[in-house]
Amino acid sequence: MSETKDKKDKLDEEIQKEAQESLEETVQELEQEEAKAEKSELDLANEKAEEFENKYLRAHAEMQNIQRRANEERQSLQRYRSQDLAKAILPSLDNLERALQVEGLTDDVKKGIEMVQESLVQALKDEGVEEVATESFDPNLHMAVQTVSADDDHPADTIAQVLQKGYKLHERLLRPAMVVVYN
Amino acid sequence: MSETKDKKDKLDEEIQKEAQESLEETVQELEQEEAKAEKSELDLANEKAEEFENKYLRAHAEMQNIQRRANEERQSLQRYRSQDLAKAILPSLDNLERALQVEGLTDDVKKGIEMVQESLVQALKDEGVEEVATESFDPNLHMAVQTVSADDDHPADTIAQVLQKGYKLHERLLRPAMVVVYN
Repeated sequence: MSETKDKKDKLDEEIQKEAQESLEETVQELEQEEAKAEKSELDLANEKAEEFENKYLRAHAEMQNIQRRANEERQSLQRYRSQDLAKAILPSLDNLERALQVEGLTDDVKKGIEMVQESLVQALKDEGVEEVATESFDPNLHMAVQTVSADDDHPADTIAQVLQKGYKLHERLLRPAMVVVYN
Repeated sequence: MSETKDKKDKLDEEIQKEAQESLEETVQELEQEEAKAEKSELDLANEKAEEFENKYLRAHAEMQNIQRRANEERQSLQRYRSQDLAKAILPSLDNLERALQVEGLTDDVKKGIEMVQESLVQALKDEGVEEVATESFDPNLHMAVQTVSADDDHPADTIAQVLQKGYKLHERLLRPAMVVVYN
């Protein structure tokens, strides 16, 4: 019996060892398969998460861009909103100024014209429209429509006379001043 | 030997059965644990994907809202851009009209004033500014500053006289017409 038992024990050991190995192998295989399947599902989920995170970040950035551009555009529209109407009423202002030069106006008429003129100038000023300065000649602000000969007292490229006032809306030129320059 | 073999076979069977059961149990446990761990990682990834999908969708919708609002605002700013300047030059127009009523103007002065007046009216018209109609009394467009007694030819709530013209910018009232109404 002792011999048989020894033999059985040995066989037992072998069987158990084999079973153990088989178990380990099976577990390992299962683990790998599981991991592979889960990995791919997890990968997909992660990819989807990443994709939407990127889409979200892009949409968010674009949203801020749109908002920024809309603000800039609104500010610009506000700043230059009176450009067209202001430009269109400048000839009226010219005519009023010319009318004031006419000889033989009664005081009442003269006063009336001056009132209208001042009122228009003030309305334009309130919107940011101002006369272009004509102290020194600047081709960006003045149009030389006529020249006169320069001399010792009047160097070239200085303004001899302003024929028609120029106007700008803030820093934007509405129309240049028409000037006579020394040449 | 045959008896021993039988016994051994039986023991073998039992051992193998036990090992099999143990294996199955172990595999099951491992599977569950794996599944649990992977599930929670997968859940997290799915949650994250869903969260960013929602964030993206919200950002996208908000972006469209911002764009729509910016467009509406731009259109409104464009449509009413001349409101302030137009309002401010209406008194000049009144004064020019009053000046034309003065007796004893020379033809040149009268012509000059008419030119300025027409030019201003045209400039305003180009921006959408028009006189308020005064055919029938409308409290939304007219301000009754004086009343005269109604009679058979002049029913109550009709306009007797326009003291000062009213103006609107598109459908928006810039100022009501000042009128005398029958009462």
